[in-house]
Amino acid sequence: MIDRLPLVAAAAANGTGNTHGVAALLTALIAIFVATKLLGEIAQRLGQPAVLGELIAGIILGGSVLGIVDPADPIIASMAEIGVIVLLFAIGLETELAALVRVGTSATTVAIAGVVLPFTIGYFASRGLGLDEIPALVCGAALCATSVGISARVLSELGWLDTTEGRVVLGAAVIDDVIGLVILAVVASLVSGTALTVAAVAGIAGIAVGFVAVAVIVGSLVVRPLFAGVERIRAAGALGVFGLSFAFLLAWLADLSGSAMIVGAFAAGLVLHRIPQRHDIEKATTTLGHFFVPVFFAAVGASVDLGALMDSRSLLLGAVLIAVGLAGKVAAGYAPWWFKGRKLLVGIAMVPRGEVGLIFAQMGLSSKAINSGEFGAIMLMVLATTFVTPPALARLARGRAHAGMEVADPPGDGGIDDLVAGASERARKSGELRPPNGG
Amino acid sequence: MIDRLPLVAAAAANGTGNTHGVAALLTALIAIFVATKLLGEIAQRLGQPAVLGELIAGIILGGSVLGIVDPADPIIASMAEIGVIVLLFAIGLETELAALVRVGTSATTVAIAGVVLPFTIGYFASRGLGLDEIPALVCGAALCATSVGISARVLSELGWLDTTEGRVVLGAAVIDDVIGLVILAVVASLVSGTALTVAAVAGIAGIAVGFVAVAVIVGSLVVRPLFAGVERIRAAGALGVFGLSFAFLLAWLADLSGSAMIVGAFAAGLVLHRIPQRHDIEKATTTLGHFFVPVFFAAVGASVDLGALMDSRSLLLGAVLIAVGLAGKVAAGYAPWWFKGRKLLVGIAMVPRGEVGLIFAQMGLSSKAINSGEFGAIMLMVLATTFVTPPALARLARGRAHAGMEVADPPGDGGIDDLVAGASERARKSGELRPPNGG
Repeated sequence: MIDRLPLVAAAAANGTGNTHGVAALLTALIAIFVATKLLGEIAQRLGQPAVLGELIAGIILGGSVLGIVDPADPIIASMAEIGVIVLLFAIGLETELAALVRVGTSATTVAIAGVVLPFTIGYFASRGLGLDEIPALVCGAALCATSVGISARVLSELGWLDTTEGRVVLGAAVIDDVIGLVILAVVASLVSGTALTVAAVAGIAGIAVGFVAVAVIVGSLVVRPLFAGVERIRAAGALGVFGLSFAFLLAWLADLSGSAMIVGAFAAGLVLHRIPQRHDIEKATTTLGHFFVPVFFAAVGASVDLGALMDSRSLLLGAVLIAVGLAGKVAAGYAPWWFKGRKLLVGIAMVPRGEVGLIFAQMGLSSKAINSGEFGAIMLMVLATTFVTPPALARLARGRAHAGMEVADPPGDGGIDDLVAGASERARKSGELRPPNGG
Repeated sequence: MIDRLPLVAAAAANGTGNTHGVAALLTALIAIFVATKLLGEIAQRLGQPAVLGELIAGIILGGSVLGIVDPADPIIASMAEIGVIVLLFAIGLETELAALVRVGTSATTVAIAGVVLPFTIGYFASRGLGLDEIPALVCGAALCATSVGISARVLSELGWLDTTEGRVVLGAAVIDDVIGLVILAVVASLVSGTALTVAAVAGIAGIAVGFVAVAVIVGSLVVRPLFAGVERIRAAGALGVFGLSFAFLLAWLADLSGSAMIVGAFAAGLVLHRIPQRHDIEKATTTLGHFFVPVFFAAVGASVDLGALMDSRSLLLGAVLIAVGLAGKVAAGYAPWWFKGRKLLVGIAMVPRGEVGLIFAQMGLSSKAINSGEFGAIMLMVLATTFVTPPALARLARGRAHAGMEVADPPGDGGIDDLVAGASERARKSGELRPPNGG
């Protein structure tokens, strides 16, 4: 082929004009896929969740370092948006509404304290550092939601998932997410210009809660006959395609009704959690998520402007957010004073922030409600809180990790654990997954 | 929620400005997913391949009727392009190079005659109708490639897949596809301005063949250790993601070297067909294809301008192409005169055109090498040849259809049959799949 190079160059110059946009997209996607998987793998081998590596991959691919991935490119941005819809749909598919009722008051108390404390302290601390009202609200909101994927994975790796503490943490993390989505809907409206009045906030929160409630009630009546019909369609993959279409539909309706798209996607997952075809839908969603979700995390990482972050004000804000993020959640662990279990363990397990915090930050940045320095500070907080948890939990849990625990959602079986934390069934079976730094 | 409607409208008006592009994308995708699956299902129940229904869904969604899907929208166009890359990657993954050697001279003769006859007659007939050189070449090229997915599905549904005739047809269809890709690379260069000289055509054909040859040889050395390494990655879905990245990489390299992207995607599939991790890659590719491939077929359908087609010249061209398409392939069935089997059955089984013919037409239209009337005529030919085959084969095969035949690639198991013809394992198992119109 060597002696054809001039011809090749000529053909490339005049022969493929209409595919160059696609070629650029393909190279960006190859870079995202390979870098997120490799750095996710390295993160896991260091005892960290894969999502950390994926974020760092995004930072490296973005404008601050290599400049291969432009998160503002409309096609990358659309695929990232589909990625976060798929991710929240997957989280919803995993969430059992009935279990939220069962975990009782301890989990609810931890969850509410774990939202109120970081949000309030974070808001006033940010205001104290000179931030305006809206950026301070975004910072407070980003501090709220525990990453359910990361918590579940860390606890299951350490053998704590089937303990009282584990159940409280899981329940609180899920309630956390629901509250986080309501806050998200409020913040989304505020950053795009709605005046900050009690009536407006109550209205938006009411819409978000109302949307989920109506979606769950109406959806529960509709989806069983609907998907029983879909199951009779011969076309391969119909269940997965209709499941995703349902998530897209609710995301679109949520957007139309003034709430956030991911609220609709999450509601779609909640509704489909209860139908017999759930498993097929979950498998297809997980496979699809393997491709779309890394685009979201890489785009978030690529949005980090390392230059803007290297500024004493941003670094100070980042340090304050990290401190509030740690203290607020650990304190929340002690909120149910009657709880007999290890409160410190519960508190520390609630520390990692992830997807939802990143969504807040991304939404704030793209609507220009926060600047790139504030965005960088939130990213620092997400990275640090996620980074610090696995070794801290491992130290606390030392000597207690036991093999053979029941895992409700085995790795490799689809679902959010396979999307976010990403340990394969094979790795688990062969015993390669060990508690990091001891155990 | 009723009394909140004014607030909802206000929030929608000012609250979600930056998501409207995504909302439009979601509605287009929902329409594509639901319409292609429903019309694909109706097509199958009428004994037709699902792809026919998907094309008609595209025509209905496109500018000629509803105007919901704009195939020129950059994001829809990119997703369609990814869809055709995924589709050719899946076809390649199914193609056993060694089997091409084994099927011997009968299949090769059928394949070559089935390319040469329709191409030559189609080219000169189009010229006779007053078409310029390049549009006539595109019409001739679109007549070449038998749709391997449709042929395989129809033959397997009729119980003819394990006969000599079946093997000749399958072998010839695969060789057809390979020759079709070479013609595609040539036409792609011609439509974008390369002068039509013997040297240029030979050069481009050489690059396409050389690219596949180099890809297969170099790839075979590289992919085994590469994917053995990928298999050790814990992150869930790594095999599928790396498989697709490999297909994207070869598509991009093919584009760089002056060939067509789908030539690279097909070569990637050929190479990965031989590694032990093929099954996992194929499953992920199939699931991904369920979402992306319908976007391609719907975009092709949406490109049809019914107005431009309703013109006596376009309809005449369509009728001529249909006649050439039928006669050329049936005659090709008689080309291996020494063959003892039922030549008419082989010839008719070669008639359906599908994916590759559509890719030619789409490429010609988007590069403005053909006008919308000529594009519509090619679409008519693809629709008619596909439409006519299942009932004709069923009549010929009457009384011979036997149950319990061996199917190398069982439906529902992933692969091209599940992407294109789309019968689910459940439908087959329950015996719902019957030869259409009798048997």
